[in-house]
Amino acid sequence: MSQTAQDERLTERELAVWRELLDTTSELRRLLSAELQQVELSPGDYAVLLALTEADGNALRSSELADAIDWERSRLSHHLGRMENRGAIVVLTADGLDAIRRASGPHLRAVKRLFADALEPEQIDNLAEALASIRKNLGSNNSTEGGHA
Amino acid sequence: MSQTAQDERLTERELAVWRELLDTTSELRRLLSAELQQVELSPGDYAVLLALTEADGNALRSSELADAIDWERSRLSHHLGRMENRGAIVVLTADGLDAIRRASGPHLRAVKRLFADALEPEQIDNLAEALASIRKNLGSNNSTEGGHA
Repeated sequence: MSQTAQDERLTERELAVWRELLDTTSELRRLLSAELQQVELSPGDYAVLLALTEADGNALRSSELADAIDWERSRLSHHLGRMENRGAIVVLTADGLDAIRRASGPHLRAVKRLFADALEPEQIDNLAEALASIRKNLGSNNSTEGGHA
Repeated sequence: MSQTAQDERLTERELAVWRELLDTTSELRRLLSAELQQVELSPGDYAVLLALTEADGNALRSSELADAIDWERSRLSHHLGRMENRGAIVVLTADGLDAIRRASGPHLRAVKRLFADALEPEQIDNLAEALASIRKNLGSNNSTEGGHA
C-alpha cells in the first residue's frame, strides 16, 4: 500500500480540536441537563419522551426505542424501570406527553441560546459538514454496525 | 430593545445540527471508551491520568485536578476512591504512569482513525472556529463561572 496522510501521527492541532470538541459538548450537555432539571426531567427522560413523541402512534417497541436514542438495551430497560411511575414505557401516556410539552419550550430555547445563537449560518453549515464527514468515516470504520439512515 | 436574530425560534436546521453534534460525539465517546477498555482503563481513569501526566511534577491538588478534567469534586472523589488500588491519587505513581503509557498510543491512534482522518485541514479549522464561538457564547451566558483560560 502507498503511504498516505492516514499513516501519519495525530497532530497537536488535531488533538487540541478533538479535546475542545469533547470539552465543549460536555459543557453543553451539563448546562442543558441543568435546564431540564428545572422541569424535573433528566436528559434520559427527555430523550425517551422525545423519541416516543416523534414515533408513529406515539409508540415504539423497546428495541426500536433503544435504537432511536442510541442506547444499549440494558441501559434502556433500567431507565424505563425508573420512569415507570411517569407512565412512559414504550407507549407515550398523557402524563409523558404533558411532561415533554412542559419541557420542550424551555429546552429548545436553551439549545438556541447556548448553541445556535453562538453560530453564524455559515458556521452551522461548516459544523454540519464536519459532522457528516466524521459520521461517514465512522460508518466505514464500523461497517458491521450499519448507520442511522 | 430592538428585535434581533436572537429573538427568533430555533430553526429545524439548527435543531438537526445540534442533534447530530450530540449523536456524533456520543458515538465517538462510545467507540473511544471501547478502545480504552482493551487496555483496562475507563475514560475517567484516562482523563485523571492524563491531567496528572501533564501537570508540573506530575501532581495536582484534588481541586486543580477536578478543574483540569472539568468534573464536580464529588464525582472526582468517588472516582479516585475506585482508582486507589492503581495508585493515581493526586500524585501520579509509577503504576499510573505505566497505565497511561500503555493506553496513550492506542488511544491517540483511535482518535486519529475515528476523528482526525475523517476531516480535511479546512474542516478541522472550521470545527475549531465553531467550537470557539460556542465557548465564547457560553462564557457570556455564564459569566459567573469563569473560563478555562
